[in-house]
Amino acid sequence: MNGAQSLIRTLADAGVEVCFGNPGTSEMHFVAALDSVPEMRGVLGLFEGVVTGAADGYARIAGKPAATLLHLGPGLGNGLANLHNARRAHTPIVNVVGDHATYHKRYDAPLESDIEAVAGSLTGWVRRCDSTADLGADAAAAVAAAQDAPGRVATLILPADLSWNDGGVPVAPIPPRAPRPVAATTVKAVAEILRTGEPVAVLAGGPACREAGLLALSRIVTATGAKTLIETFPARLERGAGLPAFERLGYLAEQATYQLNGIRHLVLAGAKAPVSFFAYPGKASELVPEGAQVHVLAELGEDVTGALEALATEVAADTEPVLQQPQRPALPTGPLTAQNWVEVIGALLPENAIISDEANTSGLLLPAATAGAPRHDLLTLTGGAIGQGLPVATGAAVAAPDRPVIALQADGSALYTISALWTQARENLDVTTVLLNNRAYAILRMELQRVGAEGSGPKANALLDLSRPDLDFVKIAEGMGVPASRATTAEELAEQFSRALAEPGPHLIDAIVPPLL
Amino acid sequence: MNGAQSLIRTLADAGVEVCFGNPGTSEMHFVAALDSVPEMRGVLGLFEGVVTGAADGYARIAGKPAATLLHLGPGLGNGLANLHNARRAHTPIVNVVGDHATYHKRYDAPLESDIEAVAGSLTGWVRRCDSTADLGADAAAAVAAAQDAPGRVATLILPADLSWNDGGVPVAPIPPRAPRPVAATTVKAVAEILRTGEPVAVLAGGPACREAGLLALSRIVTATGAKTLIETFPARLERGAGLPAFERLGYLAEQATYQLNGIRHLVLAGAKAPVSFFAYPGKASELVPEGAQVHVLAELGEDVTGALEALATEVAADTEPVLQQPQRPALPTGPLTAQNWVEVIGALLPENAIISDEANTSGLLLPAATAGAPRHDLLTLTGGAIGQGLPVATGAAVAAPDRPVIALQADGSALYTISALWTQARENLDVTTVLLNNRAYAILRMELQRVGAEGSGPKANALLDLSRPDLDFVKIAEGMGVPASRATTAEELAEQFSRALAEPGPHLIDAIVPPLL
Repeated sequence: MNGAQSLIRTLADAGVEVCFGNPGTSEMHFVAALDSVPEMRGVLGLFEGVVTGAADGYARIAGKPAATLLHLGPGLGNGLANLHNARRAHTPIVNVVGDHATYHKRYDAPLESDIEAVAGSLTGWVRRCDSTADLGADAAAAVAAAQDAPGRVATLILPADLSWNDGGVPVAPIPPRAPRPVAATTVKAVAEILRTGEPVAVLAGGPACREAGLLALSRIVTATGAKTLIETFPARLERGAGLPAFERLGYLAEQATYQLNGIRHLVLAGAKAPVSFFAYPGKASELVPEGAQVHVLAELGEDVTGALEALATEVAADTEPVLQQPQRPALPTGPLTAQNWVEVIGALLPENAIISDEANTSGLLLPAATAGAPRHDLLTLTGGAIGQGLPVATGAAVAAPDRPVIALQADGSALYTISALWTQARENLDVTTVLLNNRAYAILRMELQRVGAEGSGPKANALLDLSRPDLDFVKIAEGMGVPASRATTAEELAEQFSRALAEPGPHLIDAIVPPLL
Repeated sequence: MNGAQSLIRTLADAGVEVCFGNPGTSEMHFVAALDSVPEMRGVLGLFEGVVTGAADGYARIAGKPAATLLHLGPGLGNGLANLHNARRAHTPIVNVVGDHATYHKRYDAPLESDIEAVAGSLTGWVRRCDSTADLGADAAAAVAAAQDAPGRVATLILPADLSWNDGGVPVAPIPPRAPRPVAATTVKAVAEILRTGEPVAVLAGGPACREAGLLALSRIVTATGAKTLIETFPARLERGAGLPAFERLGYLAEQATYQLNGIRHLVLAGAKAPVSFFAYPGKASELVPEGAQVHVLAELGEDVTGALEALATEVAADTEPVLQQPQRPALPTGPLTAQNWVEVIGALLPENAIISDEANTSGLLLPAATAGAPRHDLLTLTGGAIGQGLPVATGAAVAAPDRPVIALQADGSALYTISALWTQARENLDVTTVLLNNRAYAILRMELQRVGAEGSGPKANALLDLSRPDLDFVKIAEGMGVPASRATTAEELAEQFSRALAEPGPHLIDAIVPPLL
């Protein structure tokens, strides 16, 4: 057994069953070895940002890591933005970054670069493999590191000769580190705060955004009158009819300040104390209201759900959670607007859907329109690096082939990783992309005003404008093998969205939606 | 004057007149400031790999740096692969990477990441700006660092508040460091070797690939009988009728070994001692024949052209260079093949063209077919990170609006940075892209065999295959605003290529060419 075979064998034994890859010459033995491990599926991306974003989306839904296969430093670089998003999502991912053979590195061949430096910027787990015999152990350690609570990006740097040499030894899985329990005294201390009657908000994130955490949260706030907010960009938020419904903390500092106004205590459950996404001249970075106290119930890496359940037992033993009733907007009519397209989604969202949301400014009204839709998972842009939506949808669909996946995708962000559409076609994934085409980096037009940038003229505006020429996403999608259509009215969007959901395989709807702002 | 204005003013005063950008919120004051400096042109890319590749292509033709504008660590990551190629090309580039405001960094907001680590992997010049008053000085230093011989990527990390604060001070240009002269004794020592009558090869790269160096090389080898080889992937090679013609060292180690067979002395002029691009099981990494001596006439950073001219004076005082005669292949007929498409290019290449060559395996026969075509510049994939060709063509066209730019682009590599086409349309650049569509990562099929990867089956083959579905580059190009057509015969390619050259603005030809191998 060669090294590559032992590595893939070990990954599969540890439950890693999908490898999203964009390989090169130094990964050829790894590629060849895929056929020796029946449990391992290879999925080709035509750009590494698709590969890493798909691995992120896969793990958010599958609850276990996929592997990526990347080609040296430049391949890792191309995948870095979506690994940044995965890092912020605490998504377990096992990167396999091929490198030159050990003895070849000193020659500084053209593709030589400092892979450790780039991988290290992800502040996860990085190991350079140094012997074929140890590749199995390296792989088992990587899978465990990726899954150690709260989850992270683990990167193996794999020299080509270690792959091709004989002497590989598969290694049994290493149990990952479970979340640390939260001390009963911590739970009781937070319970005391909730009983003071002072204004309290619970900011919940990470595992608290799943059903068990949400149910506990609902009991707590129903019993105590505290306010609950979900972190601004959760990795995976379960929502819809039959689940408790909570507001998310706003992206704009002004929104968040309004939501937290008057709070005396902020309890953190799997979320960090809120800060402004960007700095703005003359505005504070910290969003915790002045004078409010911050209390940590459970941080990421701790048993957030268990702590919430313990807290519910403490303060809401006899309280039932309040569940969202089914409720859908009426199907709207007329030309598409930033207001009515979300109503189409809310009216027609199928049962058990997964939404990958990178609608950005076009999606500001989405949460309200879908709050009472059938239960669904919402995957958001966790790290702010745009170009995540289509790859995450792709990976989610690989993880859940029986669930409808809806990608709500802004035009400006779509071009970073547009070839995700090709992978959707190749794998016949049931992804319906609604491309919100406002022909601008609308968020930057807004931000240009918000940061108070004075005197911007035609050159500045040209850098925020996506017309001249207009992007035709119908043609782009068809060019990548995905059936596509264009909607300019709510009726067209409803008809095309219904049809796309009814047919298997990927579809794209180029929805021409004027900017909200 | 705010910091951003002083920075852009300083860049423009130092001759940096184009900023390729893909900005975000933290760069909004920089964007707004563009309108305050009339000499600075802003060019939008829809993905950072387009931005950085275009800056590379621009500088290779303009002979001076462009700036890039990138959004924090993820933006730099997205641009990293083409910066890697630029590093290998020794292209001067001034990256401006926006970052959070100085006081905002400690909050670990979602887009926070280790920009220095990623920038540092480029082994160029990196500076984090730390005061508004110093931004002008930082910019002047960055431009000089980028241009210090032999050229490099210089990265300024620009916190948002330094841009928006008042107190910017433009700074006068700093003269970059010129190439170091080569000692007369070194030239004489190489002259002695050339006079021994033993088999000598000169491997020339960098500045030696421009007219003056080539003329000196031709005189040297004509007078002495030495062999000249051009480095495998020159940043810019001047060639065609009226210039000396030299073979390039082969990409495949087997080719290079054949070309260097029997050599006793290898003289390096602006090139490094040749090594295999990748390692292969049981094959040597070093390509210098056993027993051959390596002599450095001039390394990069030294005055390579001056050294060659001095050497020519020494050994070939009365010898004229041998110049390539005009000579074009006949226009071929019949279905397109890897053999005949290059003849179409050779037959029709216009005067004074710039070729951006990322044809990869499809282009193996290109050099012979274009050797006697009208004089042109050839820009090659210097660092092996695919996805360079379309952006480099884009930047070259910005640098030379009066010259026809031809992008010869393999299908597999095209998807990494396909939105370069949109920038070509936006800027109405005269780029004709011939998309060599063989529906495979053909080079990897070859490499899979060459590395001796045994037992590859359907999963391995699927990762090297670009069909299922076929990519339709006509639709993709049209979707990005570039007129496009498909050629399946040599006649169609000739007709479409001629028409594209005759019309202004960008065009794409989806040339269906079966794999060569």
